[in-house]
Amino acid sequence: MDSSRQAELLDFIALADRLKHVLRAARTGERRESAGEHAWHVGLIAVLLADEVAPRPDMARVLSMIAIHDLIEIEAGDTFAFDDAGLLTQAARENTAASRIFGFLPPDLSSRLHALWEEFEAQETADARFAMGCDRLQGFAQQVECGAPAWTEIGLTKARSLVRMQPAIDLGGPFASMIEALYDRAMENGLLRP
Amino acid sequence: MDSSRQAELLDFIALADRLKHVLRAARTGERRESAGEHAWHVGLIAVLLADEVAPRPDMARVLSMIAIHDLIEIEAGDTFAFDDAGLLTQAARENTAASRIFGFLPPDLSSRLHALWEEFEAQETADARFAMGCDRLQGFAQQVECGAPAWTEIGLTKARSLVRMQPAIDLGGPFASMIEALYDRAMENGLLRP
Repeated sequence: MDSSRQAELLDFIALADRLKHVLRAARTGERRESAGEHAWHVGLIAVLLADEVAPRPDMARVLSMIAIHDLIEIEAGDTFAFDDAGLLTQAARENTAASRIFGFLPPDLSSRLHALWEEFEAQETADARFAMGCDRLQGFAQQVECGAPAWTEIGLTKARSLVRMQPAIDLGGPFASMIEALYDRAMENGLLRP
Repeated sequence: MDSSRQAELLDFIALADRLKHVLRAARTGERRESAGEHAWHVGLIAVLLADEVAPRPDMARVLSMIAIHDLIEIEAGDTFAFDDAGLLTQAARENTAASRIFGFLPPDLSSRLHALWEEFEAQETADARFAMGCDRLQGFAQQVECGAPAWTEIGLTKARSLVRMQPAIDLGGPFASMIEALYDRAMENGLLRP
């Protein structure tokens, strides 16, 4: 590896540290979860569920996609799933951020990881859909586990929550049944309005 | 998926949240880095370096190994690389923790992930060594980036640090040269004693 490539990779590794300071709406213990922690937890869920779907996802691609899927939040910030104003500008902000963030990498890696992120966003491949299912499942499970103060604060209804969760539910299999079980728990615990 | 398997997986996903509260010696910003954040960062480094080593690692295995490599710290805690008393008991504590933590999973997943963790620990396969290199590189880079208060507090020497880093340096390629560049920066910044 030549020294300029090496310097770019070391700088990128240092830059990525900032994802540990992008805070999500869900809590872990008494504090908000970081986007770095979220990305790890989503990857773990992918490992646990890989054998539950057919055909088995290409886990090298899925786990790489999950590792990089939120890097753009270093620039664009995390957009809460029910922040309507934020959602209007989310795609534009994230596309700009992706060009900038992946642009810090050497050209070959930049193209490959930017394309992998675009594949995740486009949701047109089975690997991207599996990764999305793990991402939504983690976010939902984390809210149910932490008592979902971000949901109760806005009086979130089950119907509005379902709009967000439907793409993951539509994957069927473990995603549909696990999310259904989590909805049952959320309703029992009064985390969502009927 | 039957309902008892599903319940075990949902419980495991909730249990894994505790890795976000295992704190490491390195800092990120003004606080200590969590083991969950570390595991994500190590996985990202693996994605960045996969094309730099030959033969290319099996990234499905490597990224799965990295996702689970520190789960045992939920029970065993993080052992600082220069905590001599902790290091004496580390293997026994971590083996006990591994049996317990992986034991919460359904038998097939339990066996597979426990074996993957043992492969990482045994360092006998190329995939395990690549994962170890990414793990050590992350820990080292994070300390250099944060000014290494945990090193300066104990007056860590370069020689003692090298004992820890030698297995990663011995991998050669990007690991040797990136760690060398980081040592240069650490010495320039007075983070290690000569």
